[in-house]
Amino acid sequence: MIKGKSGGWILFLFTLVIVFFMGLLANSIMERRTEAVIMRKAIVDLGEWETRNEVWGEAYPEQYETYLKMEGADLEDILEENPNVTILFAGYGFAKDYNKPRGHIHAVEDVRKTLRTGGPTTENPSPMPNTCWTCKSPDVPRMMEELAAGGKDGASEFYKGGGKWETLGSQIINPIGCADCHDPETMALKITRTALIEGYKALTGNDITEATHQEMRSLVCAQCHVEYYFDKNLEGTKKGAPYLVFPWSHGITAEDMQKHLDERGPDGKGHKDWIHAVSKTRMYKAQHPGWEFWQLGPHGMQGVSCADCHMPYESRGGMKYSSHHVTSPLDYIDKTCQVCHRQPEEELRKAVKDRQASIKKLTVKAEELLVKAHFETKAAMEQGATDAELENIRTLIRESQWRWDFSVASHGASFHAPLQVSNLLAYSIDKAGKARLELSKVLAKHGFIGDVILPDISTKAKAQKVIGLNAEKMKADKEHFLKNMVPKWDEEAAKRHESWNK
Amino acid sequence: MIKGKSGGWILFLFTLVIVFFMGLLANSIMERRTEAVIMRKAIVDLGEWETRNEVWGEAYPEQYETYLKMEGADLEDILEENPNVTILFAGYGFAKDYNKPRGHIHAVEDVRKTLRTGGPTTENPSPMPNTCWTCKSPDVPRMMEELAAGGKDGASEFYKGGGKWETLGSQIINPIGCADCHDPETMALKITRTALIEGYKALTGNDITEATHQEMRSLVCAQCHVEYYFDKNLEGTKKGAPYLVFPWSHGITAEDMQKHLDERGPDGKGHKDWIHAVSKTRMYKAQHPGWEFWQLGPHGMQGVSCADCHMPYESRGGMKYSSHHVTSPLDYIDKTCQVCHRQPEEELRKAVKDRQASIKKLTVKAEELLVKAHFETKAAMEQGATDAELENIRTLIRESQWRWDFSVASHGASFHAPLQVSNLLAYSIDKAGKARLELSKVLAKHGFIGDVILPDISTKAKAQKVIGLNAEKMKADKEHFLKNMVPKWDEEAAKRHESWNK
Repeated sequence: MIKGKSGGWILFLFTLVIVFFMGLLANSIMERRTEAVIMRKAIVDLGEWETRNEVWGEAYPEQYETYLKMEGADLEDILEENPNVTILFAGYGFAKDYNKPRGHIHAVEDVRKTLRTGGPTTENPSPMPNTCWTCKSPDVPRMMEELAAGGKDGASEFYKGGGKWETLGSQIINPIGCADCHDPETMALKITRTALIEGYKALTGNDITEATHQEMRSLVCAQCHVEYYFDKNLEGTKKGAPYLVFPWSHGITAEDMQKHLDERGPDGKGHKDWIHAVSKTRMYKAQHPGWEFWQLGPHGMQGVSCADCHMPYESRGGMKYSSHHVTSPLDYIDKTCQVCHRQPEEELRKAVKDRQASIKKLTVKAEELLVKAHFETKAAMEQGATDAELENIRTLIRESQWRWDFSVASHGASFHAPLQVSNLLAYSIDKAGKARLELSKVLAKHGFIGDVILPDISTKAKAQKVIGLNAEKMKADKEHFLKNMVPKWDEEAAKRHESWNK
Repeated sequence: MIKGKSGGWILFLFTLVIVFFMGLLANSIMERRTEAVIMRKAIVDLGEWETRNEVWGEAYPEQYETYLKMEGADLEDILEENPNVTILFAGYGFAKDYNKPRGHIHAVEDVRKTLRTGGPTTENPSPMPNTCWTCKSPDVPRMMEELAAGGKDGASEFYKGGGKWETLGSQIINPIGCADCHDPETMALKITRTALIEGYKALTGNDITEATHQEMRSLVCAQCHVEYYFDKNLEGTKKGAPYLVFPWSHGITAEDMQKHLDERGPDGKGHKDWIHAVSKTRMYKAQHPGWEFWQLGPHGMQGVSCADCHMPYESRGGMKYSSHHVTSPLDYIDKTCQVCHRQPEEELRKAVKDRQASIKKLTVKAEELLVKAHFETKAAMEQGATDAELENIRTLIRESQWRWDFSVASHGASFHAPLQVSNLLAYSIDKAGKARLELSKVLAKHGFIGDVILPDISTKAKAQKVIGLNAEKMKADKEHFLKNMVPKWDEEAAKRHESWNK
């Protein structure tokens, strides 16, 4: 026990310290309350179609700050890393330029910059239609709604547009962001893309408005992270427009979607994305069936949503919020995987990487076989093989490449559904092997016995040259476009945004 | 409230009923105590090498009763279901007879009955060595120990034996059971097979006695449910004996084990299980790498043991015991899967069946390609192709069939490690496809262009005839053997067992 005069002083000082810290604590609690109130309140001020993410950001600083973390990622050139891919897409845009994706915030910038969209001028339009914009910006549903306000089919009008994608360059300005997935008044998750509403109905028979909140936490992503194609042969107002369709009429596997595409095209005998420049095969381009693979794999089967792993909860002040730094869950294992899986971080990371590595090896096998099959088909044509002799071979090539492409084109398929991807690659390898076996017989029939010698395609530059691409010209056109056309778009957009502030 | 005279009576009767039920409950508790005491006490009476399961059963009735549930399962004929398999094993025992396995209790009976072990007589020995007995009976480690007691290498002596398997027929009588995995004195799990002790050391560098109890709950199974081969080229006392080896010197994947086998054989240029009767390829037979696949898959990675799913806990009286009805966990989903996985039974069953079905399709693809490759090799030989021209082709065939066989030969691989099995089948398909492509070129070089026509192998009988097997003679020999030789073995064994009772 403390006794006497000095004991009293000690007690007094001790009490002072305690009271001081209690004051600090009370202050912290009050601050948190204030933040919480701000976060709940600021859902005002946003008009019905405010598409500027920075304006939403004033109301939702935590979400916006995490969204900004996607900024500044480097471009990674897939064709440089793997020149075989250049050959596989010969005759199609992806042979010109194919980078790894790098976050929502770069969506508009990257569409402008990729060589796939060409270097249009007023005289020479680009090769790509307006439909390409669909997944790049909240300005897209804004425009669709504006067009629909005139009593028209807004989506069809948008896809038709004035022709090529550059006709909408000054309108589509703000990269993928807030208004793509949120109702500005209630902040509820919202579907803004017609293609998903229609695809969901075709797939499930249900109206998407009946989806639960947990389903919506994946469905908002499924507006873009899905397989799709452009269909010019739809009836009614859609006829002639490159209408965005999710090919889900038979289901969501690669086989199901191939069946859908096989039944399309102007004559119902098959859709065509392009004719392969080397083998003259009618090809399908797989896009990014992320939502589909997720459903087929263990996480989807358990109802773990996209947001559960890609937008983990964080907290600041008294408020829990969802990170909008949409990225690999491996970047935040403690907030993502470890919410359910109690193993050490390194063990979890290794389990993912091992799956991916084992599948990557199969991917490379399929690519090698397909590249050879394309060139062997060309050799057979040069030996005099007819289209009739090559018909079955080209079908095998199309189906093999569809499966390969389907398995690599989405984010993280080899993690989302490793078994399904491995199975798919096995079929890809099987079909490419069968095409090559048939080719060797056709070649022998036409007097060629032995191995077809491939040209040197050991670098992207060499491969592009082999398939007749002029990289210098493509780059020069693009630079001219970026210097002359794009600044005008931005000026025009700045004026429009200015007018919104009034 | 109850009032007056009748109220008192009701209360009295009510009390009587309560007391009666309390008596019943007390009785039940006491009975359970008694059972528990019996179960803990009866670990006496078993000698050091009591191999009769029924004698152990007197001491451990619950375990023995569940063990007996394995009795009476039907034989399922794989060759009848899938005649392609007959061709794949042409020149080897598995083309004669190949049934689905049906439980520990049938082990000795099925070895006697399968056509693979032939119908030996005193004059005409069978084709199979003593080593074949190794996994069939607790009489095997008993005999090894007896042989070792004479100062020799018990295992080598056993494998050499008097020559062929039938020389030990009267000794190996009791099917796989108690003494294979348990110490008769302490009931602790026990490793009784030399091959695992040696394989474990080669694989991990550790002494198997250091394994934990949870590891032992899988390792006792790994005494038999693993990949193995017979090596006649080992140094020392092992030389010349078909010594049982687990090929784990490089690891436990199919690729690792192929590497092990590639480095074996008398000249170190490759082990040989047999020469394929159709294509003359040096072949490896995969056995049943169950423990290996389990480790590579999600359950093994999490440390869930074989016994956790295949020998679930049950309870009787006051005692919890492990079921010894070793079977598919799908037979008792409530006691197996649902201990961890909280989904409905049908959902869990479907998840397993879907995995298996998707992989089964790839299996069939690999089989079809391999059957064609064997016959096309034969055709190339008939056209005059040399061994040098066929060397790479035969390597591809061996490696393809090894991967196919490895993926189908163990129990439930497509559940234990679906991704690894799918990957493996993709490689099998790739290699078989490459072999066929090379073959078409060799055939063309020798003047044959077009498709090699396969003989009719649409039934097991037709397929066996094509590869030169005389099914009638095999069956007649077997019947003669079962009628004349086997009864003598049983008589001899009965006398020995009688002597143990004294």
